[in-house]
Amino acid sequence: MAKDTTKLSIIREGARQVHSKGYNNTGLSDILQAASVPKGSFYFYFKSKEDFGLAIIDHYGEFIQGMAEAYLVDSNLPPLDRLANFIDAYQTLFEKMGLRCGCPIGNLIQEMSDLNEPFREKIGIIYSRMQSPVEQCLREAQDRGEISADIDAGQAAQFILNSWEGAIMHMKLAKDSEPLKIFRRMVFERILKP
Amino acid sequence: MAKDTTKLSIIREGARQVHSKGYNNTGLSDILQAASVPKGSFYFYFKSKEDFGLAIIDHYGEFIQGMAEAYLVDSNLPPLDRLANFIDAYQTLFEKMGLRCGCPIGNLIQEMSDLNEPFREKIGIIYSRMQSPVEQCLREAQDRGEISADIDAGQAAQFILNSWEGAIMHMKLAKDSEPLKIFRRMVFERILKP
Repeated sequence: MAKDTTKLSIIREGARQVHSKGYNNTGLSDILQAASVPKGSFYFYFKSKEDFGLAIIDHYGEFIQGMAEAYLVDSNLPPLDRLANFIDAYQTLFEKMGLRCGCPIGNLIQEMSDLNEPFREKIGIIYSRMQSPVEQCLREAQDRGEISADIDAGQAAQFILNSWEGAIMHMKLAKDSEPLKIFRRMVFERILKP
Repeated sequence: MAKDTTKLSIIREGARQVHSKGYNNTGLSDILQAASVPKGSFYFYFKSKEDFGLAIIDHYGEFIQGMAEAYLVDSNLPPLDRLANFIDAYQTLFEKMGLRCGCPIGNLIQEMSDLNEPFREKIGIIYSRMQSPVEQCLREAQDRGEISADIDAGQAAQFILNSWEGAIMHMKLAKDSEPLKIFRRMVFERILKP
């Protein structure tokens, strides 16, 4: 494998295992074995496990960015339909995964915020970036008179994102997508009620 | 130390360390050293690390139950004031802890739901129990005509609890209590708006 391909395959396998069982609970040797990369060559690609962890966080961030671009941004659909489609697309994804794993960023927030400052900083940037396209949808909906102009779009977007993370957490606990459905209903019927 | 006292001191120290750095990331030897208990005697008190982990979850559950009883239940205050006081008391607690650690149950949901079935079951019971007194407050508020009778109190209580967990998670990431304040505002000004 070329250098870039090997590096990416280690990141992908690492992202999968960290998503499934946590960062501290994931051993490098398991990742390298699953990615069919010789144990000794890890440090050819990464300075340290931390450096590798930061690359995994970027990988998650790119995926989320892709979902946001596919559903929330640059669409001819009305903004609240885009938001609903984004929520539905994630629900479908979680159901395909057997309601396991949850949000990789949410998991790492809980696990790593107090343990590793570079992780916390990088996750903080990604989390803020997750909020922006939701806020943009809310502003557009306000411009169209579809939600109340009294709502602070930035605060509402942050609340919706945090509540979404909480709903995903409960889904992961209950092994049931009902918390996601309740979230969706509450967002559109209460929070964003005109 | 008497047997019960020693066992409780191991649980308390374990609860502190697991809250601070996660279950899988916490070693028994660190806990026993901090609790001044000889390493060899752990298995006199617990069958296994899992058995110990389950006792720690019960310990968290008892604390949360105590907070619910102190603020949400059996009070002469109106139900929505009780809910507001409960939120405020937790915010004060989190601020005293330097906005670190977050909710011990929320942390374990993320870390353990896919890894350990007895943990998931016990946390699930505690999480449902957390929802009940919130739901009871909402029902009382409906009886008093303070919130709309159209709201499904059970679903709203679940949504509020999940959103609270999400807000705590964001607080832990941002090292800022602003997400808790936004949560409080959204709950009373949007979700529970008459």
